[in-house]
Amino acid sequence: MTNAFTASGLFAFYLSDAGIAAEFGAAAFTGRMLAFEAAWTRGLEAAGLVTPEDAAEALSAIAAYSGSAPGSGSERDGLPVPALVAALRQGLSEGGARAIHTGATSQDVIDTAMVLTLLAVAARTAQRLQQVHAQVEGLRARFGDRALVARTRMQAALPATASLRLSAWARPLGDHLTRLGHLRDDLARVQIGGAIGTRDAPEGRGATVAAEAAAALGLGLGPVWQADRSAMVGFGHWLALVAGTLGKIGQDVLLMAQQGVDEIELSGGGGSSAMPHKHNPVGAEAMVALARFVGAQQGLLAQAMLHEQERSGTAWALEWLTLPAMAEACGASLRHAERLIASVERIGAPD
Amino acid sequence: MTNAFTASGLFAFYLSDAGIAAEFGAAAFTGRMLAFEAAWTRGLEAAGLVTPEDAAEALSAIAAYSGSAPGSGSERDGLPVPALVAALRQGLSEGGARAIHTGATSQDVIDTAMVLTLLAVAARTAQRLQQVHAQVEGLRARFGDRALVARTRMQAALPATASLRLSAWARPLGDHLTRLGHLRDDLARVQIGGAIGTRDAPEGRGATVAAEAAAALGLGLGPVWQADRSAMVGFGHWLALVAGTLGKIGQDVLLMAQQGVDEIELSGGGGSSAMPHKHNPVGAEAMVALARFVGAQQGLLAQAMLHEQERSGTAWALEWLTLPAMAEACGASLRHAERLIASVERIGAPD
Amino acid sequence: MTNAFTASGLFAFYLSDAGIAAEFGAAAFTGRMLAFEAAWTRGLEAAGLVTPEDAAEALSAIAAYSGSAPGSGSERDGLPVPALVAALRQGLSEGGARAIHTGATSQDVIDTAMVLTLLAVAARTAQRLQQVHAQVEGLRARFGDRALVARTRMQAALPATASLRLSAWARPLGDHLTRLGHLRDDLARVQIGGAIGTRDAPEGRGATVAAEAAAALGLGLGPVWQADRSAMVGFGHWLALVAGTLGKIGQDVLLMAQQGVDEIELSGGGGSSAMPHKHNPVGAEAMVALARFVGAQQGLLAQAMLHEQERSGTAWALEWLTLPAMAEACGASLRHAERLIASVERIGAPD
Amino acid sequence: MTNAFTASGLFAFYLSDAGIAAEFGAAAFTGRMLAFEAAWTRGLEAAGLVTPEDAAEALSAIAAYSGSAPGSGSERDGLPVPALVAALRQGLSEGGARAIHTGATSQDVIDTAMVLTLLAVAARTAQRLQQVHAQVEGLRARFGDRALVARTRMQAALPATASLRLSAWARPLGDHLTRLGHLRDDLARVQIGGAIGTRDAPEGRGATVAAEAAAALGLGLGPVWQADRSAMVGFGHWLALVAGTLGKIGQDVLLMAQQGVDEIELSGGGGSSAMPHKHNPVGAEAMVALARFVGAQQGLLAQAMLHEQERSGTAWALEWLTLPAMAEACGASLRHAERLIASVERIGAPD
Repeated sequence: MTNAFTASGLFAFYLSDAGIAAEFGAAAFTGRMLAFEAAWTRGLEAAGLVTPEDAAEALSAIAAYSGSAPGSGSERDGLPVPALVAALRQGLSEGGARAIHTGATSQDVIDTAMVLTLLAVAARTAQRLQQVHAQVEGLRARFGDRALVARTRMQAALPATASLRLSAWARPLGDHLTRLGHLRDDLARVQIGGAIGTRDAPEGRGATVAAEAAAALGLGLGPVWQADRSAMVGFGHWLALVAGTLGKIGQDVLLMAQQGVDEIELSGGGGSSAMPHKHNPVGAEAMVALARFVGAQQGLLAQAMLHEQERSGTAWALEWLTLPAMAEACGASLRHAERLIASVERIGAPD
Repeated sequence: MTNAFTASGLFAFYLSDAGIAAEFGAAAFTGRMLAFEAAWTRGLEAAGLVTPEDAAEALSAIAAYSGSAPGSGSERDGLPVPALVAALRQGLSEGGARAIHTGATSQDVIDTAMVLTLLAVAARTAQRLQQVHAQVEGLRARFGDRALVARTRMQAALPATASLRLSAWARPLGDHLTRLGHLRDDLARVQIGGAIGTRDAPEGRGATVAAEAAAALGLGLGPVWQADRSAMVGFGHWLALVAGTLGKIGQDVLLMAQQGVDEIELSGGGGSSAMPHKHNPVGAEAMVALARFVGAQQGLLAQAMLHEQERSGTAWALEWLTLPAMAEACGASLRHAERLIASVERIGAPD
Repeated sequence: MTNAFTASGLFAFYLSDAGIAAEFGAAAFTGRMLAFEAAWTRGLEAAGLVTPEDAAEALSAIAAYSGSAPGSGSERDGLPVPALVAALRQGLSEGGARAIHTGATSQDVIDTAMVLTLLAVAARTAQRLQQVHAQVEGLRARFGDRALVARTRMQAALPATASLRLSAWARPLGDHLTRLGHLRDDLARVQIGGAIGTRDAPEGRGATVAAEAAAALGLGLGPVWQADRSAMVGFGHWLALVAGTLGKIGQDVLLMAQQGVDEIELSGGGGSSAMPHKHNPVGAEAMVALARFVGAQQGLLAQAMLHEQERSGTAWALEWLTLPAMAEACGASLRHAERLIASVERIGAPD
Repeated sequence: MTNAFTASGLFAFYLSDAGIAAEFGAAAFTGRMLAFEAAWTRGLEAAGLVTPEDAAEALSAIAAYSGSAPGSGSERDGLPVPALVAALRQGLSEGGARAIHTGATSQDVIDTAMVLTLLAVAARTAQRLQQVHAQVEGLRARFGDRALVARTRMQAALPATASLRLSAWARPLGDHLTRLGHLRDDLARVQIGGAIGTRDAPEGRGATVAAEAAAALGLGLGPVWQADRSAMVGFGHWLALVAGTLGKIGQDVLLMAQQGVDEIELSGGGGSSAMPHKHNPVGAEAMVALARFVGAQQGLLAQAMLHEQERSGTAWALEWLTLPAMAEACGASLRHAERLIASVERIGAPD
């Protein structure tokens, strides 16, 4: 669902990925906003700021929420949280209502829910990355000893074996998995600052509530990062590396599949409406295009660092406009990689 | 529907636009692909390459098409045309089948349907641009004489009137409408090249068929442009100019709406979940973010010029990944502009 | 001189262009700032705001200027104009000093000098574009009838002739020349607004002075465009189209020059430090890289549209950071194109 | 020296940085290429592939090199290494000549020299980052308790103190220093692969030579990364984070310095040629523009991941076209930050 055209159904999943799209969909994201609100209520209770009875009433309302129009307030507010909080508090006792969201702000909810979303995306992506890595290693086991002409600067260089090129595919895929480990340290933290980032509300006990909420969500605490978007930009960077390596693989396949070069044999391939004899390596083409797309978005996402004053709606929206599309593009590219590698019948010179 | 998150419904239309999205949706785009196929069949008939009876059978099948899964073949082919053509020909006589698509290729269909789509997008965008232009002129009529401190390089410069700033908003909006006139000359042309761009199939009569098809579609003919994407990139450039001027307006509003500056008074504004007294100018924020988004995409779209050999699936996909999102972002920004300007209760110094 | 590394001399002119760089150099640009100041003085005189004697004294000082450190004031002011104006007025009579720059502002000087610079760049670029266009037509005359396998989506499609591909190179080169004609209408205008864009200083006669100054510079007048950067962004767009078509040509050459494809024969080519037998098509590689570079810069330049309030130092600097490098990259790519095409000994199949 | 205009001298160091530019200059970079060649010769000797006498002759020639035209071969070869190696070998005995570069390739030399350059850039950048960090902490010590209105979404939110905003400046600066530590692990490794990346030449002893050369250069060894550009792209990402935080600071200063807001008092500031009363915060403007510049370049640099086959001249050049300019822009922004913070006479409300 990278845009209305690519998500139209006309292209099936050529440039999109249903699984990743679902992570950013209303159901999953609302679930994570509710998880934040429940954790926050638990934090308020643990800090002695609301009674167990009020907390129970609030948690019950949060668990029962099933808003059919979660974005109803966004036309007015630019984000769904005020309307969501109002809906949750609807009909509660005064104490129950106060046990919801008190001391938190919309950005706390959305940023923390986004962290949970990106962690889910990272897990899915890593799993598929491992799969592709294993497939490449499988190719190397099967075809690694076949002759392949090493090519540098688009020119034949020296005789080599398929293993040389396949190692260059496999190694960065493995490295990206390692990098994700480091990245999680930056990313897997709540964003809780309250109205302006002082993390003191309510009643000067905000830090305690935040610590409890973080624990309830299974996230680290760390300092307030409302205006420091390094972790978000860092996640985009990781996606750009992943998509980039897949794009390199796609590019190599396109070059190997040329008539006259014939260093790869693929089963299947896209049909042509004008030339029935053709089998277009359309998955490899998509991998290249998606890599350029993800890489280029990073150039915009990086500008989200210019997050003015305590909290910026403008810079924030740049994250929403880029990260979900980048993640989905990575997912689409991984799917193409899985199929493409599974369709390899030979790499290297024919017998 | 700029991506799965912004299109989730959680944000309503904060970063998306239903009308523009619909132009890129399956129904509208399939309708335009069918329009191409019908025009092509008429061209084949006019060139004497198929009989009137076969053409009638083909046109009837095209008119009756109501595929429920238009993207069914895209997983295999990377685009929906081969499956669409097969579905259209299904059950026809041999002559009827031959009266459909013969001599055309998938890229002819998609590029020409995209031209029709972009012309529809341009018309919608121009209409709303005119509306916003008129609204700005309305503001100038009402508030133009009010005092306003001119500011240069983010510093107060000299006393002026609101008219100075409002003229700087209005003028480029008008110019962009003029620019669209020139742009249409580049854009409103069929792309018809056949399998490899020679425009000769079938039976050496491709040029005649193409001319007839262009006339039937109300488009210019011009030379084959399958590997020259200047017109597509030019349309993106125009969108970047439009979004850019709107972003400038949004940025100015954000700066004028600051407490301490108070050069604008707006009714409405977004509510805060933590600070009920706040009225956030969320529409103006979106206009800035959307302008940066559209501008940045142009940096990727421009790379679609690197369209290798006769036709490139890779460079082509870059257009699909950018243009629809750019157009939709422009639409969203125009809607914010309409509302924002309508909400202005004062520009310039208070009484 | 796209950056300190590419301009180090280590790469000679592989990624730079001395002629275009010189247009943006201190000597040429200072010359154009002085041309503005002289035209402004003439305008002041024509409007009767300064005496012929004072104007003559001023013009004589402007003509005599040979500042050795033109950027001396930029560390303080962020631009060289205040220091330049102070230097010009140094030692003049009060009337002579008043006949220099009075009523103009730094942005008027720099924007107008930049317009003159871009027009010079456009003329150079167009001339070389014509040359490359003629060279491509020359190739078509020599080799157009040779067999060449048309390739679509990186796969062999159908037999064709070299003329098919060469036409796809030539046509957009010609179109870009035509587009430049339209572009000049937008670009070839002075920017004169005075301190805040009202174009009234001095003494309410600013419009007259501006008209005279424009005429003296051979530029159109048009409205104040200090905060509307459409023409600047439009010039960048044109550069991106030019570089893009050259990049497409480079990409095609790289693909044709592959061993196994052998559809082009080039004399010369870059040597390898490890493999003496290799002849790398390094010019074609540069053309691809430079096209991606120019295209990507356009994504940043487009954001210069977000020019806040009356005049923005921030958005303005984005133009300075992109346009000169884009122009120089185009120049470098044109030089590679000239040499590359001159080195073609065959396009299409060997005998 | 981000381009011919910004490096013209007209802008002094407004958008450039002499220290960083020098690291990418011919003298420094040639020195590092020579360091590689000397380390390689030592590796050849340690591996017993050349005699101590031949190695001594080679090292002596390398030490004596003082090429006046280091780029002389780049017009032909696209890079300076073949000409450099030829110059080094000039006049040596056959054994001495063989003790230079044998088994290495141009990319080994340039990539490893670039690593050494980026490490020097990182050290300079980190030192200045620490300095700016300390300055911000100094501001906090002096002004942290002053009242400052917290602002969210460009609207006044709640009363706070200057410390809140200054913490949000300081924290990411500190984090970026920590991130650099991790980054060095990825970056501080030789690139040695030989002609095609097998690291076996000469005589199957390439791995030994490489290990010795790495040790001689004080770099890690690690696997061949000729076609995996993750470390280069990762360095660009770090620069984008650094520039981004500085841009955020610049943006905040611009907003605080507005008349009507008056939350900061600066000494100095840029003069205006039209309005002598103005003091433009031109350094803060540059910090914003440079952050957008560096961020946007990352969108192109990320595409260097698409490094086709064994070694790509095209993708490689994208690194040369971006990284040096990004590093220099960071340096310029750090210099502005140093001066800007030093010029702060008050942050927060006046007495």
